[in-house]
Amino acid sequence: MPMPIPGFTGGLLDRADALRHDPVALSAKLDWRARLLKLDGLVPDVEDGRLAWTSIADLPEEAEVILLGLDAQDRAHVAALLPASGEGTTPAMRSPALMTMLATLEPGEAATYAAARSVLDWHARHRFCARCGSTTHLFRAGWGRQCDACYTEHFPRVDPVVIMIAEHDGRALLGRGKGWPDGRYSALAGFLEPGESVEEAVAREIHEEAGVRVSNVRYVASQPWPFPSSLMIACTGVAEDDAITLDTNELEDAMWVPRDLVRAVLAGEPGPFVAPPPYAIAHTLLSVWAAEGR
Amino acid sequence: MPMPIPGFTGGLLDRADALRHDPVALSAKLDWRARLLKLDGLVPDVEDGRLAWTSIADLPEEAEVILLGLDAQDRAHVAALLPASGEGTTPAMRSPALMTMLATLEPGEAATYAAARSVLDWHARHRFCARCGSTTHLFRAGWGRQCDACYTEHFPRVDPVVIMIAEHDGRALLGRGKGWPDGRYSALAGFLEPGESVEEAVAREIHEEAGVRVSNVRYVASQPWPFPSSLMIACTGVAEDDAITLDTNELEDAMWVPRDLVRAVLAGEPGPFVAPPPYAIAHTLLSVWAAEGR
Repeated sequence: MPMPIPGFTGGLLDRADALRHDPVALSAKLDWRARLLKLDGLVPDVEDGRLAWTSIADLPEEAEVILLGLDAQDRAHVAALLPASGEGTTPAMRSPALMTMLATLEPGEAATYAAARSVLDWHARHRFCARCGSTTHLFRAGWGRQCDACYTEHFPRVDPVVIMIAEHDGRALLGRGKGWPDGRYSALAGFLEPGESVEEAVAREIHEEAGVRVSNVRYVASQPWPFPSSLMIACTGVAEDDAITLDTNELEDAMWVPRDLVRAVLAGEPGPFVAPPPYAIAHTLLSVWAAEGR
Repeated sequence: MPMPIPGFTGGLLDRADALRHDPVALSAKLDWRARLLKLDGLVPDVEDGRLAWTSIADLPEEAEVILLGLDAQDRAHVAALLPASGEGTTPAMRSPALMTMLATLEPGEAATYAAARSVLDWHARHRFCARCGSTTHLFRAGWGRQCDACYTEHFPRVDPVVIMIAEHDGRALLGRGKGWPDGRYSALAGFLEPGESVEEAVAREIHEEAGVRVSNVRYVASQPWPFPSSLMIACTGVAEDDAITLDTNELEDAMWVPRDLVRAVLAGEPGPFVAPPPYAIAHTLLSVWAAEGR
């Protein structure tokens, strides 16, 4: 099976890194042709499956510009960073309505939104210098902040997360987190920590959450996940045995699901669980795994 | 060929995540059996290829404890975080002497050091709350800091970096950065940004630095890189053509090297470049690629 395209990938804008380092050239691009992403807070305006844009003339006077990139016609596409307010200082939530809207976006459109959302949200939560506590200012066309006092440069975070299924005897280990939608089961996941590889993080997380030891960890796919700014790294691992010891602080339940039942659920047939949504890489991961061993 | 084990992986300590959330249980582990990593700043004390440890009784009075993990005898292994000083507020440098020392460490020992170094260095550069600018305090046994004023929780950064070779007609694209040791060429690399997948970051970086378009990006291996705290994600990609357009801000030179010459250099024979050191994942990546197509 060809690899399904993971959600939030396939963005069409050229990030134009060189422009971030060249204020004069950037300024020349911010002319009447430049397009401003329409946002209400961090919620996009979606029309017929596409993000809505307006003229950069609509940029609020007090806003700063974040360069998202150039389109095929060399037009700058930007997002507006508004001054600090009470909002946005904690990670912005994703509402069911937002997720439904994102599911309607064409491939690539969600990717553009993901980049904009992650960077805007990072600015909102990183107005101060972690090294000395002073104020900072935006630089590099929005792809960093610099301290006003000690000049330390800070860059947007991307937090790597491993997301994986253990497999044993043709079955996949799926888990269920607290507060998830009724019946939803998915791949286990957790943040990768300093000092470990992807493969080590996968083995540690499966053992911590389900008490299962895995080896032969295999990379499958990746996606950005803009809630707030993760890199999801999807893998499989082969379990030594199928005894589950649940960490009830992390999971409400976990179970082994045979491949044919995973296939059936992904095909929309009834089964023992509700699948993760198509834009989540857990869906990609399960699809790839389910198609194997045919 | 079996995958060579990447440098800075294979650590033997159990990170014991549950202890981080249980101060009482953690305290009980910090008894006379607990071991303290010997460090001079961020430089380890190495004896016969192993990290040197001492009794936790030697913990300086003003130091805080970072739990590195438990060994097979259930003994806590910790590192000491000293109070803020002038040092440590910028990313610590890696000296040639340190890299030579690390190259002598047994597999797994360098992994333990990598985790300790990355976390200690993160604390040193993140004493203040990026959200509000206030002071923060260490929590979760050293695997986070919490703001004293707004209570925001902050966790150590891990910055994903893609490192990759483009391949074209049996040749690998290798580049040379400014200030590198004489003759050294290696895989291209760059930070992954918010809103992109591993595969997209690989394609973007190769195009930015060398003007080469790639597709069919394939994951090969990963490693932690504690300078200061990266996750190196090694990949290959297939180049559309072999015309190089160098970004001289990023690279001093780049060239296509045939597979047999890469093999020769890795085997210690003379060739057109000096290979990256074995503990760097670029070495692993080149070794895997060189062994293909035989």
